[in-house]
Amino acid sequence: MAKTSGNKTAISPSRAEDYASWYQQVVREADMAELSGVRGCMVIKPNGYGIWEKMQEYLDKKFKETGHENCYFPLFIPISYFQKESDHVDGFAKEMAVVTHHRLKAADGKLIPDGELEEPLVVRPTSETVIGASMAKWIKSYRDLPVLINQWANVVRWEMRPRLLLRTAEFLWQEGHTAHETMEDAMAEARKMHDVYKDFAEEVLAMPVVSGEKPPHERFPGAVNTFTIEAMMQDGKALQAGTSHYLGQNFSKSFDIQFQNREGSGDFVHTTSWGVSTRLLGALVMTHADDNGLRVPPRVAPWHAVIVPVLRADADAKNVIDYCEALAKDISAQNYASQPIRVKVDKRDISGADKKWSWIKKGAPLIIEIGARDVEAQKVCVLRRDKLDDGKQFTECKEFVSSVSSVLQDIQQNLFNQAASFMASNTVEIKNKQEFIDYFKKEKTGFVRAKWSMDTASLSVLEELSVTVRCIPFDQKGDSGVCVLTGAPATLDTIFAKAY
Amino acid sequence: MAKTSGNKTAISPSRAEDYASWYQQVVREADMAELSGVRGCMVIKPNGYGIWEKMQEYLDKKFKETGHENCYFPLFIPISYFQKESDHVDGFAKEMAVVTHHRLKAADGKLIPDGELEEPLVVRPTSETVIGASMAKWIKSYRDLPVLINQWANVVRWEMRPRLLLRTAEFLWQEGHTAHETMEDAMAEARKMHDVYKDFAEEVLAMPVVSGEKPPHERFPGAVNTFTIEAMMQDGKALQAGTSHYLGQNFSKSFDIQFQNREGSGDFVHTTSWGVSTRLLGALVMTHADDNGLRVPPRVAPWHAVIVPVLRADADAKNVIDYCEALAKDISAQNYASQPIRVKVDKRDISGADKKWSWIKKGAPLIIEIGARDVEAQKVCVLRRDKLDDGKQFTECKEFVSSVSSVLQDIQQNLFNQAASFMASNTVEIKNKQEFIDYFKKEKTGFVRAKWSMDTASLSVLEELSVTVRCIPFDQKGDSGVCVLTGAPATLDTIFAKAY
Repeated sequence: MAKTSGNKTAISPSRAEDYASWYQQVVREADMAELSGVRGCMVIKPNGYGIWEKMQEYLDKKFKETGHENCYFPLFIPISYFQKESDHVDGFAKEMAVVTHHRLKAADGKLIPDGELEEPLVVRPTSETVIGASMAKWIKSYRDLPVLINQWANVVRWEMRPRLLLRTAEFLWQEGHTAHETMEDAMAEARKMHDVYKDFAEEVLAMPVVSGEKPPHERFPGAVNTFTIEAMMQDGKALQAGTSHYLGQNFSKSFDIQFQNREGSGDFVHTTSWGVSTRLLGALVMTHADDNGLRVPPRVAPWHAVIVPVLRADADAKNVIDYCEALAKDISAQNYASQPIRVKVDKRDISGADKKWSWIKKGAPLIIEIGARDVEAQKVCVLRRDKLDDGKQFTECKEFVSSVSSVLQDIQQNLFNQAASFMASNTVEIKNKQEFIDYFKKEKTGFVRAKWSMDTASLSVLEELSVTVRCIPFDQKGDSGVCVLTGAPATLDTIFAKAY
Repeated sequence: MAKTSGNKTAISPSRAEDYASWYQQVVREADMAELSGVRGCMVIKPNGYGIWEKMQEYLDKKFKETGHENCYFPLFIPISYFQKESDHVDGFAKEMAVVTHHRLKAADGKLIPDGELEEPLVVRPTSETVIGASMAKWIKSYRDLPVLINQWANVVRWEMRPRLLLRTAEFLWQEGHTAHETMEDAMAEARKMHDVYKDFAEEVLAMPVVSGEKPPHERFPGAVNTFTIEAMMQDGKALQAGTSHYLGQNFSKSFDIQFQNREGSGDFVHTTSWGVSTRLLGALVMTHADDNGLRVPPRVAPWHAVIVPVLRADADAKNVIDYCEALAKDISAQNYASQPIRVKVDKRDISGADKKWSWIKKGAPLIIEIGARDVEAQKVCVLRRDKLDDGKQFTECKEFVSSVSSVLQDIQQNLFNQAASFMASNTVEIKNKQEFIDYFKKEKTGFVRAKWSMDTASLSVLEELSVTVRCIPFDQKGDSGVCVLTGAPATLDTIFAKAY
C-alpha cells in the first residue's frame, strides 16, 4: 500500500506523471469502481455507490419539489420504435446491445442461445421512444398536461473504448421526460431543470461549471435545443456533466402524442428530456482528487467524519473505543446541511496507519485519530482531507464537536474555491486563429472562450486538433467581434475545449 | 368512470364476479402499472412506483442498520458464468433474455442486428454468478469477512404467461449477497434477513405471513436452505413474498471464493442471498384492495391524506383553497411512524366527485373533502379508506389535526387485522388424504396445514391438484402424527396451497 512519507504520495503515478493512470488508481484505491469480467461493464463499489446515493437523494428531492413523479419503463425497446424518429436512431444505432433470443439450451456440453424473438429488442440507450409510446396513451386533453416524470435506471451504450465511470457500456442515470401544451412551457421546463443541474454541480458537488447551449451539431439526437453544464477536469479537458433538451414536437409527431387543446382542436405536445449519470462520479474524481486520492465534498460524502482508534497496547483498547463511540454519538447529534452528521468509527482489525490512509484515499472530509493520550487530555487529533499538508490539528474535544458543522461547510467551500480558481486560471480568451491552433497544440490546455460565427464549415480545424465546441455560454458579453476560425463578423462567445 | 351508487362499486367486475379481471382493473384504476408495448414488460406508474419507493426506503434503512452496503453489478452476465454452477443454470436457463449483437444497421430500409458478440451475454435473472466472480477477487483473508452487500436492480426472466406486477419479464428488486467465514455465520445472516422480511411484511405492508423453510424440491437453484414468507391472497392462494437463501459453499466452490482462515489454511466462504421484488405491489393489491379499488397501508402510502377542495361557486374558490392549504400545512407538521405526514391538496381541474373517487381507487388512507360550509364551520369531512362503508365523518378541524397520526396507526392496524383474520379463517388443518383432495377440488381454497413425511413420491397428487408445498413453518406443534399424503409417521407440520 503506497503511502506519503516525505514527498511520496499515496497514489502512484501522480497526476503530473501520468494523468490517465493516476485516475484509474484513484478510482480503485478509493473503492469507487472497477471493471468487471463483462466487457465494458463496471462494478460500482460501496464508496462510489455511497456517493451516488447522496447525489440521488439531493436530485430526487429537487425533482419532486419541482412537481415530478417517478415511474419505471421497460428496459427493452422494440427495434421498430427506433425507426420512428430518424435523427434519434442515427445518433444511437451504432452502439446498442440487441436481445435476439429468450432462452439458452445445451448443445455439445455448451450453452447456446435458443428461442429466437420475432422482433429483436434493444436494451435502452435512453427512453424517449418507449416513454413517448406511453405518453401517447396517457394524454388526451390539455387537462392531462403537463406530464412530469422521472426515471432512475440503467442504460446501455456499447462503447468500443470503455473508461471507468466516464464511459462504460452500462451506466446508471436519471432521465426526466415531460410533455407540455406549448413551446414556452416546455422550454421553461428544460431551462428550469438545467438550472437544477447547475445548482447541484456547484453547490453540492463543489464543481464549477460553464452553463450554456450546445450548437446544432452537438445536440442530442432528435432535440431542438440542448442545454449543458460543462465542467473542467484537472487536465484542462471539458466534461459534459448534465444536459437538458427541448425536443419540440419531434417525438410527439413520431409517437403520435396528440391532445385536444384549449381551443378544442388537436395538437401535438412539446416534450423535454434531461439527465445526469454515474459519469458524475468520474467528474468528481477529476475535479477534486489529488495525489493522495479522492477528496469528497461533504454534501455527497457517505461519511463526513471517520474516527480511527489508535491502539498501542491492549490495555488502552476499551477506554479508547468507548471514547470514540461517545465522540461519534456527540458528532452525529450535530447537523450539517440539514442532515445529521454521518460519522463512523473504523474498528477493523488492521493498523491505525493503514486505516487512516484508506480513508485519505477514499476522501473522507474529516479523519479523527484517537489514542490513549487524547482520551486522557480530552482532545481529538483531526486531519482535514482538503488540507492534508497542514497535518494533524489537536483540539479540545468539546470545541471540535461544536464546530464540526462549520468545518464541513468550510471544506465544501474550499473545494469549490480551489476548483473555481483552477477553472478561471485555465480559461483563456483568444481572438486569432493561429493563436487558437497554437494553444490547442500545447500538451496542457483548458477552455478557450472566443467569438464564433456558428459556421459549420469552420469545424474541420477543430477535428484535427481534437477540439469540440462545448457550448455557447449563457453569460454573453454581447459585444461584436470576428469569428476566431473564419474572421467573419461574430457576436457569440463560445467555449472550445478538448473533452471526455 | 364507475362509481358506488347504491350497491354499485368502483371496480367492475367485483372480486366475487371475476377475481382475475378485478385484479387487473384495480391495478389500472389505482394508477399502479400497465403492460407496455414490449412483450411481457410493464410500466410502473406513479402510484405504484411511489409505494415501491416507500418499501425501498424502509428496507434500505434496515439493510444499512444490519451492516450492509449498496453496490451495483453488471446487467450482463457471460454465458460461461452460468455453466459454472450446474443446479443454478438448470433452474434459470429456460427463461433468460440473451444479447447476441452490439449494433443495429439499416438493410432494405429496416434496422437489423449487427456486430455479433463473441460470447453472448445473458440479461441477469439474478446476480449470484456475477457477484461471486467479484467476491473471488475481493476476499483473501478472514479479515475481509463478512462481505455484506445489497443491490437495487432490474432483472429479467422471460415469462410465457406474464401477469401484471406478479410475473413480468422485467421486474425491480433488491438482492442481498453476503459471504462469511463459517456455516453458522452465514445461516445466522440468512435467518436474520428472513426476519427483516417478516417484520417488513407484517408491520409495514400490514400483510400477515407464514414464515418457514422450503422443502428441498422448492429451493432456489443452487441453495442449501431457502427460507420464505408466504402471504395469503384474497382468493386463498399463496404468494411467496420474500426469500432468503443459505447457499453453503456451492457458489464459492464454483467461483473459487477462497480465503485464508484463522488457522492459516485455505477455505471456501459460505454465502447467502435474499431478495424481495416489485411483485410485492401485486401482493399488496391482492391482500388489501376491495371492490372500490386499492387500500394502501399508511406505512407505504405515497400520500397519507389527500385534501379535495369542493368548489360549488367561483366565489368560494379562494377561501376554500386557502383553508385547504392551511390544513395541509398543519397536518404535515404532524408525524406518523417518525416521518412528517404526507398530505396533498388535489387542485386538478376536474369535479370534486371525480377527484374523490380517483383517490378512493388509488387507496389513499384518508380523503378529506372541504367545501365552503366546512370552512365556515371550521370542520373537515373525512373519509377513511379502510372504512368506506362508514361514510363521511365531520370533525372539528383542530381535533382532526391532533388525532391524524393515531387515526393512521388505527388504519394500519385495521388493515393488518382484516388480513390476519382472513388468513386465519382460510387456514384449515387436515389429517386425511381424501379430505385433502376434496378440499383442494373446491373452487375456493386456502392454506392447508398438515403433517407431511417429506416423501417426494407423494407429490404427484399435488401436481394434479395444482397445489404446492409452500413451506415447513417455523412454528411447529412438535407433536407426532401421520403424513396426510402417505399415512407414514410424520412430525412436521407443512403448509400446502395453490399459489401465484
